[in-house]
Amino acid sequence: MGSFVNSSRNGGGGGAVVDKGVDFAQYFCTYGFLYHQKEMLCDRVRMDAYFNAIFVNKQHFTGKFWEKLLRGHSALLVYCEVLAHSDYPGKWPFNVLVVKVVLDVGTGSGILAIWSAQAGARKVYAVEATKMAEHARALVKANNLQDVVEVIEGSIEDITLPEKVDVIISEWMGYFLLRESMFDSVICARDRWLKPTGVMYPSHARIWVAPIRSGVGEHKMGDYQSTMDDWCDFVDETKTYYGVDMSVLSKPFAEEQKKYYLQTSLWNNLHPNQVIGSTAILKEIDCLTATVNDILEVRADICSSITLENTRFCGYGGWFDVHFRGRKEDPAQQEIELTTAPSVDNGTHWGQQVFLLHPPIRVSEGDNLSVSFSMNRSNENHRLMEVDFSCEIQPVSGKLIPRFSNKFYIE
Amino acid sequence: MGSFVNSSRNGGGGGAVVDKGVDFAQYFCTYGFLYHQKEMLCDRVRMDAYFNAIFVNKQHFTGKFWEKLLRGHSALLVYCEVLAHSDYPGKWPFNVLVVKVVLDVGTGSGILAIWSAQAGARKVYAVEATKMAEHARALVKANNLQDVVEVIEGSIEDITLPEKVDVIISEWMGYFLLRESMFDSVICARDRWLKPTGVMYPSHARIWVAPIRSGVGEHKMGDYQSTMDDWCDFVDETKTYYGVDMSVLSKPFAEEQKKYYLQTSLWNNLHPNQVIGSTAILKEIDCLTATVNDILEVRADICSSITLENTRFCGYGGWFDVHFRGRKEDPAQQEIELTTAPSVDNGTHWGQQVFLLHPPIRVSEGDNLSVSFSMNRSNENHRLMEVDFSCEIQPVSGKLIPRFSNKFYIE
Repeated sequence: MGSFVNSSRNGGGGGAVVDKGVDFAQYFCTYGFLYHQKEMLCDRVRMDAYFNAIFVNKQHFTGKFWEKLLRGHSALLVYCEVLAHSDYPGKWPFNVLVVKVVLDVGTGSGILAIWSAQAGARKVYAVEATKMAEHARALVKANNLQDVVEVIEGSIEDITLPEKVDVIISEWMGYFLLRESMFDSVICARDRWLKPTGVMYPSHARIWVAPIRSGVGEHKMGDYQSTMDDWCDFVDETKTYYGVDMSVLSKPFAEEQKKYYLQTSLWNNLHPNQVIGSTAILKEIDCLTATVNDILEVRADICSSITLENTRFCGYGGWFDVHFRGRKEDPAQQEIELTTAPSVDNGTHWGQQVFLLHPPIRVSEGDNLSVSFSMNRSNENHRLMEVDFSCEIQPVSGKLIPRFSNKFYIE
Repeated sequence: MGSFVNSSRNGGGGGAVVDKGVDFAQYFCTYGFLYHQKEMLCDRVRMDAYFNAIFVNKQHFTGKFWEKLLRGHSALLVYCEVLAHSDYPGKWPFNVLVVKVVLDVGTGSGILAIWSAQAGARKVYAVEATKMAEHARALVKANNLQDVVEVIEGSIEDITLPEKVDVIISEWMGYFLLRESMFDSVICARDRWLKPTGVMYPSHARIWVAPIRSGVGEHKMGDYQSTMDDWCDFVDETKTYYGVDMSVLSKPFAEEQKKYYLQTSLWNNLHPNQVIGSTAILKEIDCLTATVNDILEVRADICSSITLENTRFCGYGGWFDVHFRGRKEDPAQQEIELTTAPSVDNGTHWGQQVFLLHPPIRVSEGDNLSVSFSMNRSNENHRLMEVDFSCEIQPVSGKLIPRFSNKFYIE
């Protein structure tokens, strides 16, 4: 999932009770628009990854018995295997051949659920919190899959399924992976509904960071300064014409504008040549075992070596990747990767998140950045993040640049 | 008040219970930003109107006794008048000279409350629902008015005042006057807190409409057609590459986009020469007596005569004005008008609301438009509106253009 419109800062941080009405007004609502669904459906990299992950790994969706038959194994031997399988005492052999049950968390238009059904699943539960569920239902019917795909409108935390599932598939990733905190819902679904033998699609996720160069920082600083100059004129005029001294608001205004122009992470589609140092992993998630606690706070200490001669360290670029590996006991036939790393041709609607430094810092090839990172949920809205970077630079030649810290907001 | 970010359609229509958390997340939140307050404070037409309304009508704020003294009346005679006044049995004569109490509904930065105090009010209650109240408090203190102005953070519907007030001042007007439905809160304040002798600032409000010409409609139609062409390609590609037939969603997508591009009213700063016919009043409000019921539905049948030779009727332009007239028994010294009509030099941050027709209609000087108008609150969000225009055109020469209807959304 990409962006959502955030208009307020209500709701709790990690663990706090979130008012459902407020959560709907702030978060879920944009997903009720077809235009927004279309934007995600037009992301070819995203679509290709999920499409391939499903269709090259049909055994997770169809069932190994059926797959074996398709691959030419002896029908009799397969039948014996079926009968011996603890799941299926006394069932019709043909029914049990198509054995997989899938849960699509946040089905949106229903695309993943439809693919899961087309890949051979016996049953797909497609859960969607918004009125988009009605469109998903229409789409399922129009594609003749209403006997397999059951669209359920509701929150995954609230709804009840008649059975546990073999696969949980979901496209839950937000900017910088965890913005939107939708993975909480996937974890909840997994803990409630995934069989002990079940697999997660995707199975793994990682957050990456690298030092970058960018011209955007200068613009933002210019905009900020412009806004502050304008404020000064405004204070003068309001005093002159209207007899009210607004100068006491200058400090809070500056803080508000600084946060908006200089401290809020930006969506950007970085060119690979903007990455000026080695990339590093900030977090690795095993989707089968991760808990909400594991992701409430993300902390990492990493190093990055500058790879470009005589350049400007303008800030940090962040992105994520996910992998579809199945599980150890039931691996994917072929591992598929969906990456949102800076790319010339394979950009995604997620872009990257850019955290700008003001001013940029001159660095050179071989200089070493020692970075501490931490990310927490915003107290006012658990779906938004507060990020702290602190960095020390050991140049190849020259004096150590002592540790400097910057706070950012992912809005 | 100008714009607010609407991100959802929750909450009830007129009369329904509105969830406060949701209302905050959708409506109040943008008013918590100094940047937004500044935009309104920089609207010179708005500022001048309120400033003048208050300072040329000080008797509403200072009290007639004090005003009389200032104008040279005999102190002894004024004192006798004070003692005789039913409000002030046995009070100190000097205290009672500054006798007016003011309530500022939705004080924001506190500007109107501060002016009211500077104009001589004994006490000003400045009520503000958002955290902007903290800034208002600081501003009051920085302007040495903390003994007069008491900032109260809360909803006017919930808070309690220690006394009734002589003046309710508020800048509650939204686009096309009633967007945001803030006047409901002013009515509530009036019914709870205004003395029988009290005055409303402003005292009157009117909604206006006129036929207009505009180039924007063509752009919107172009954007809409572009989006639909893009959708068709998307449906083809999704079928070809991903085996899913999305055509069942074409109709709801077209409706969603039609609503967005063609049926949503636009903010515009109209030039007076874009007004192609006589203006007409859709609604008149007496702020002293209006009830919520009076404004739940706005209906009007009006006529407009085209004033331009051979032009295009591209849609309807709507705006409002308010007046500060005091009350019949206690009128303003000087009536002040705040108008948002199309103007070259005196535009406001409200602009006008434009309701576009597709395609435009050729009309000529003297042609008569017979228009029926109705406006109701949106079921999903009582602060947003649904508008119906129906129009019949009797040309000076030529055949009647039979009644055609258009629905619009004020988002």
